[in-house]
Formats: sequence, C-alpha cells, structure tokens
Amino acid sequence: MSADVIAELKEKLRGISLLEHSIALLEWDQETYMPAGGSESRAAALGEIVGIKHKRAQDPALGECLSKAEDVASGSGDLDLQALVREVRYDYEQAIRIPVPLASQIAESCSQSMAAWKSAKDNDDFAQFAPLLEQQVRLQSQFADCLQDEELCPYDILMNQYERGMTSARFGEICKVVVPGLQSLVERAASQPATTPAFMKGPWDREKQLAFSKEVAAELGYDFNRGSLDLTSHPFCTSPAAPHDVRITTRVSEDNFTSNLYGVIHESGHAMYEQGLDPEWEHTPLCDSISLGIHESQSLFWENEIGRSEAFWSHFLPKLRDYFPGPLEGVGAQEMANAVNPVRPSLIRVEADEVTYGLHIALRFELEQGLFDGSIQTSDLPGLWREKMQEYLGIQPDTDREGVLQDIHWSFGLFGYFPTYLLGSLYSAQFYQAINQEIDIEAEVSAGRFEGILQWLRTRIHAPGRRRLPLELLEDATGQTLDPSVLITSLDRKVGLVQGN
Amino acid sequence: MSADVIAELKEKLRGISLLEHSIALLEWDQETYMPAGGSESRAAALGEIVGIKHKRAQDPALGECLSKAEDVASGSGDLDLQALVREVRYDYEQAIRIPVPLASQIAESCSQSMAAWKSAKDNDDFAQFAPLLEQQVRLQSQFADCLQDEELCPYDILMNQYERGMTSARFGEICKVVVPGLQSLVERAASQPATTPAFMKGPWDREKQLAFSKEVAAELGYDFNRGSLDLTSHPFCTSPAAPHDVRITTRVSEDNFTSNLYGVIHESGHAMYEQGLDPEWEHTPLCDSISLGIHESQSLFWENEIGRSEAFWSHFLPKLRDYFPGPLEGVGAQEMANAVNPVRPSLIRVEADEVTYGLHIALRFELEQGLFDGSIQTSDLPGLWREKMQEYLGIQPDTDREGVLQDIHWSFGLFGYFPTYLLGSLYSAQFYQAINQEIDIEAEVSAGRFEGILQWLRTRIHAPGRRRLPLELLEDATGQTLDPSVLITSLDRKVGLVQGN
Repeated sequence: MSADVIAELKEKLRGISLLEHSIALLEWDQETYMPAGGSESRAAALGEIVGIKHKRAQDPALGECLSKAEDVASGSGDLDLQALVREVRYDYEQAIRIPVPLASQIAESCSQSMAAWKSAKDNDDFAQFAPLLEQQVRLQSQFADCLQDEELCPYDILMNQYERGMTSARFGEICKVVVPGLQSLVERAASQPATTPAFMKGPWDREKQLAFSKEVAAELGYDFNRGSLDLTSHPFCTSPAAPHDVRITTRVSEDNFTSNLYGVIHESGHAMYEQGLDPEWEHTPLCDSISLGIHESQSLFWENEIGRSEAFWSHFLPKLRDYFPGPLEGVGAQEMANAVNPVRPSLIRVEADEVTYGLHIALRFELEQGLFDGSIQTSDLPGLWREKMQEYLGIQPDTDREGVLQDIHWSFGLFGYFPTYLLGSLYSAQFYQAINQEIDIEAEVSAGRFEGILQWLRTRIHAPGRRRLPLELLEDATGQTLDPSVLITSLDRKVGLVQGN
Repeated sequence: MSADVIAELKEKLRGISLLEHSIALLEWDQETYMPAGGSESRAAALGEIVGIKHKRAQDPALGECLSKAEDVASGSGDLDLQALVREVRYDYEQAIRIPVPLASQIAESCSQSMAAWKSAKDNDDFAQFAPLLEQQVRLQSQFADCLQDEELCPYDILMNQYERGMTSARFGEICKVVVPGLQSLVERAASQPATTPAFMKGPWDREKQLAFSKEVAAELGYDFNRGSLDLTSHPFCTSPAAPHDVRITTRVSEDNFTSNLYGVIHESGHAMYEQGLDPEWEHTPLCDSISLGIHESQSLFWENEIGRSEAFWSHFLPKLRDYFPGPLEGVGAQEMANAVNPVRPSLIRVEADEVTYGLHIALRFELEQGLFDGSIQTSDLPGLWREKMQEYLGIQPDTDREGVLQDIHWSFGLFGYFPTYLLGSLYSAQFYQAINQEIDIEAEVSAGRFEGILQWLRTRIHAPGRRRLPLELLEDATGQTLDPSVLITSLDRKVGLVQGN
C-alpha cells in the first residue's frame, strides 16, 4: 500500500517533469535554431504545454496523493522520502495559491513589458517603460500576497522564489560587509594599468575560439555526451532532462576571446551542477537544483576561482597558444591571469569584473527593496540609480540606457533575483576555501587535474539536489555558516597578486 | 450559435495541433542536436505528449462538437467548412476505432522491431528479424481490422493510411503499365557508359556544398525565414508549425556532391508544399498535406523534373563553378545533366536512379500484398526478393543486407507506404506536363525564373491542403485522370536525351 502511494506520487511528478522537458526544449530551440517566422506559432505551442503543466501542478488529485505520501514518509525514517514530500508540498502549495487569472495576467504583462523595455532602452526613454514597470511591481506584489507568510515581507517572499531561506534583512547585513570591502578593493586596484595588453587585442578566429572553449569545458568535466554547445545572442544553460540532457549556449566575438571562453566556462559550471544531480530521483525535486544562488556559485566557481587563476593558465596557455601561436608568443601564465582580471569601475553589470560586480548588485537590491516597501517610486529610479552609482562606484551613466534600463530582469517581473548573483560569489568563495583544505587546488589545476575538485562538488553540492536548503547545504559542505568576509579575503588576495604586491 | 460551434471545434483542433508542434520539434531535435545521453529521457518526453494528444484526438467531447459542426456545415453552403468537418470526421473515426492497448502494443513493438532489424541488418541475419516482422504484420492486420471497411481489404486499408483512395487493385493495374515500360527503358539505357565522368569525382568541400545547396533551395523558393537546414544521418523534412516553421535536414559526402544537392532539393520540395499550405486554416486539416504520394510528387518534381534537367544546369552550373572552379572548368550543362542522370540497375532502392526506382517499388508492393493476403510467409521473403530482383532488374543481391533487410519501413510497421513513392513520380510527371502547357518550363528554368512554376504548384497543389483527395487534386490541377504512361513517356524522352538519340 505505502509503496503504491509513493509510486503514484512519483508517476504524477514524472508527468509534470516530462512536460517541463518539452518546455525547455521549445525554449532552447527558440533561441538557437527556430526560424524567425516560427515565433508566433512557438509562443502558442509553449502556452499550450505550460497550461497543461500548470493544471497538473495544482491538480487536487496530486494534493490527495501527496497527503497520503506524507503519512507514509513521516513514519518511514527514510530521509530521502521525507525530503521528497517536503519539497513536493512546497511546490504544490505555491502552485495552488496563485490563481490562474493572476498567472495569465503576469504572463501577458511580461511580454508587453519586455517589448516596452526593449524600445525604451533603444530610445533611452525611461518614461516609456515606467508605467509597465509599475504594473510589474504591482503584479509581483499581488503574487507575493498570494504566498503570504507571517515572517516574510512581500520582497522577502519574492527573494525566496529564487533563494529559499534568504531575507532582505539578512541580505542587507551581507551588503554592509561586502560593500565597504569591495570599495576598498576597488581603490586599492586603482593603481592597476587601465589599458588592455597588446596581446589581448585579437582578432581571434571564431572557429578556433569555439574549439578551444569546448576543449576547456570538456577537460573541466562538462560531459558532452549529455550536453551540447550552440550559438545564441545571450549565453545560457538549460536542462531538458537533467542529468541526461543539459545544454549550454555561447556567443563569440572576434575582438575578445575572453567573452566566449569565460562565458563557456560559466555556463559549463551551471551545466556540471545539473549533470551532477541524482539520476536515481530523476523527474522529482530531489533531482533538481536548490536555488539560483547555489547554481550561480557553480558557474562562478569554475569561471572565476578556477578559470581566472594563474594555475589555470599554467595548464591551458600552451593549448590556447596551439590555436593562436602568433599573438601569444612569449606571454606567460601570470601575465595572462593579470590580463583576465582587470578591476575597473564600469557602468554595465554584465561587463563588470569580479570585484566591482557585487556593488552593482547592492545597488539593485536597495532599489528593489524600496520599490516594494513603498519608499521608492518608479519615477525616482533614474535619479537614484545615478546617485548610487556615484556612491558605490564613483562613476555615473550619461544615459538611462547605460543606467536603470540596462537589465532585462524587471521587465520580466524578476524582483529579488539580483541578490542571487552576489550570493553565488559568496558561496563560491567559501566552497573554494573548503575544498582547498582537502585538495591543493592550485597544484591540481596547474597539472590539469580537475576530477578531484569536481568530485567534491558532485558529492557535496550537486547530488543533494533539493534535499537541503541553500544555507544548510553550505554548512554541510563547508562546516561554516555564510560568511561574506571569505569573498573579500579571496578577492583581496587576487587583487594583491594582480598588483604584484 | 453556429459560429460558436465552429469556433469551439477550431479551438479543439488547435489544441491538438499545438501538441503536434511539440512532438515534431522533439523528434527533429532527436535527429539533429540532442546529445546521445538524452535519448531515453527523450523517448519518455515524447511518449507523454503523444499520450495527451491521442486522448484529445479521441475525446468524446470532440465527437459531440464535431456532430454539431457537421449540422452547421451541411446547411451552410460553405465548401471550406464542409471539407473541414469531413476531414475532422475522418481523423476522429480513425482515432476512436484504434483501442489504446493496441496503439501501445504497436508503439512498443516498433521500437523492439527496429532494434531487431538494425541488428539483423548489421549481421546479415534475416532469421533474427523474422519473428518481429511477423509480429508487425500481425499487429498491422489487427490495426486494419479495427478500421474495417466493406470495400477495402486489410492491405488496402493500410495503403489508405498513406494515400487516401488508393487500392491494391488500382496500384496493381498501374504496375502492369509501369513495370514493362521501365524495363524497356532500362534495356535501352544499357548502352550508356557505366563509368562516372572524371569531373564528378571530387573531393567536394563540405561547407561549399552546403552553401551551394542552400543557395539553390532559396532560389527555387524554399523560404529560409520560415525554414532551416541542419545536418542528420538521414535527410528529412518536418513541420513543427506549417506553414510558418518547416525545416529540412541533409547529409554531405565529400565524394559526391549530388547526394547533398539532390537531397536538399528533394527535401525543399517537401518543404515548399508545407510552406504553401493555407495559413488561414492553420491548426486544422485544411492546412495539412493530403497524402504521402502528393507530398512525394512535390519533392520529386523539384529534384528530378527540374533539378536534373539541362535547363537547371544552364542556370546553376556557373554558380556551382564559382564554388568549385577547378574540376568544373569546361564542363557544359548537357554534360552535367548526363552525369546526374545515370540509368543502371542497382541493389539499393535509396540509391536507385529515376528509371529503375519504380521497379524497386513494384517488387515491394507485390511482397507486401502477399504478406497480407496470406499467400506469402515471412520466411519466403529473402528468396522471393532475389527472384523478383532478377526478374525486374536482372541482378541479385549476395546478401539479405542488400536485399530484403535494406529498408527500415517494415520494422516500423509501415506496410502500404512504398507505393506512395511511385505514385509521387506519376503525379509529378503529370504536373510537369500540365504546367508545361501554360509555362515554358525549360525557358523559365534556364533563365533562373522559378516563381511561375512554384506559383502554379502553390495554387493547385499546396493551398488546397486536405480539401481534395489525391486523385481529385490531380484531376483539378491537370484536367487528367491518373495516367502512368505520362511518366514512361517523360522518362523515355529523358533517356533519349541522355543517350543523345
């Protein structure tokens, strides 16, 4: 009997997961190979499957089955089963609390709002986007109201959509440590030469770049037998069927090989997480990533901690030189590591370096918090943006296009999402520290041995899936609580190396 | 009220069609970009959507809505509406007559049987495949029984799955004309030199081949804004969303540019049909192809009638020479036309030329007919295959791999499908004749003007969709009934040209 209930629950979850497989593929294709003329039909096909999926996710029969499964699990002493029903309950409660009309309104508003944002950005005209942005804030407030929680304010509820267990109070505390820490690093780095070394200037042949990046990704541990690399205008990672089919995309610029290389390493980091999920629990939340912050920790770990290290270049520079013998003659690993680690205040978040990046996030967090507690109006945003850029980074955009209009997120209704980028850096730095106590990372990386490092991540971070919440996972893995000073110390060391002092 | 019923019917059809969109994309991806490790998950994801689609296709609510729509249509005098309900009724009756357990059994048997066929072919061991083949014949007989029809025998019912209105009696009559006609052409062509001209020998750069083929397809009229060309091991055309998203695939061999070029033209012919369907009736049977024979007529028309003509090479040879200046210096259009029109008996159907191709089909038709009327046992097949090859083509395979095991179709349970290939040739020849009475095809093609020809096909063949059955469509378009002698006359003329007599 009890086995039957669990089997029935798994069957229902499988049905939902298989629809998510199709949704992921339809979306992937939309960005990669779909002909332009197919876009309207694709939106309709996606809408159809999403609709069926939502219906299943809030099906009362799922709720009944889940209740029975909870009874079975609670008496079973089986920790996996208990984690399973806990996570299914979490998803189910979320699904049933959002009324269908609100979900449709949000979906519709997102597509309008994204169009308005694109046009506003093109025309550098914030006023064009403002009413849609206001609408997005209103709809997301309504969304948060549906998920009302005694302990959490609306903005916290939104943050929890992306990072379970995080609150604005906690994140505010983090910023109090991180912001001054990063600012003093920016100052210290100001003596760094602001010019790009001549050997970095390219042009870099696209095919060769792709071949090299693919070689790097495969060596780090991204399994191409369960993955693929395709071209898109914005790089991403998607999993039609984790851990068996996890794809990444990239872009290539002839001027700058680092855009492609670090993009590929970053997405490979995301993909290795998904490829490391537990196949025993395929189609259930135990074979799913736990949060965006943890996800980002995996991409940033490989991109920044590993990929931008001197050790990395000790191993990979000869290989890169095989592809591009001329321009890289005589360049050493340390020189290359310096070249890929500039620290310079800049206007655009996605182009920001590792040190200044967190300041861009703190700024967005404060504005979002204000939008949801009512202390900031959308009309205040362009001005506040400039003020805070001045305060945190010492520079100001001339246009809103390079300011408040630069990110797509708000047009999608993604509020509370930005903090996960910074949390990813914090986790990543702590994982590095913990691994380094067991494995001499520099020695391994210099020797081109990545398996031990990946294995550590596989066991401690990837395989657990949603069995543990982000902060629990961090503690399990590192034995430490969340500590923003680890990131600062790590960056301090890096800036020191780059400065040669 | 009556408008509501039609709107409701269209809404239901749209729901089914949007699922077919996802199914087509999942299958396309499986052959193009899916990583190998994703295949099991993909089968599951496909099974899920196919299941939902089948449920909708046989939903009693669809039946009720359809009955009401039939009442509305019959009194409306609206021919489109009448065609619509007729075709929806046809699909619905088919769907409700096949019991779900039989459909599952067939699906399961196909995957077993395909695996057995692959292995049997690899090992040249027919006995390994025989029991599965028997099972496929049995299941397809049961399938035909479900669709029982007073006027049609089981094999006819299967033929009708692919070519509505065709019977084995009628197709037998066709073969009586076609087989001796082709045989005498083969004899006449026997004096042709059996060697490939030196300038055809390559190697041909793959990228250049693809660029040229793409250029040709676009010039003929395949719209890449609503299409794409990707690489697969077996070329095909698929429509996630006709007429807005219609894709083709191809393969490339360095030894032989014609494999790629004529493959691309062939698939473009299929794709232009789908791109020419009526967008006003998207998601309904009126925006769907009527039969495999008509589909094949479109691919063969562009591949053989247009693509293998001297006029085609008058226009395209200079362009091909731009890509491959060396080997093609001094080669003329007539010489090239001769080189791409060899007539030689050969063992493998998919490599057969235009003249011998029909003989391969006649052979398969006779064997299939015998399997379903009980006059042939599966164990007889290898021997009968050799006998008939000797009789029709004057050659015999040494192995079953090159004989009875060469085609994948039977392993998929596709019986009654092969005749559509020959019907495609017959239709194509008659379309050519009819167009040529209005448009000087040779003159147009030599001048690189394809629009008039495509427009004729668009209006007469593509746009009608399933409004007319294949033989009605042929008569509407050409003013003639099906007449196999047109193909023979056309090929006779071609052999004469190639022979230079």
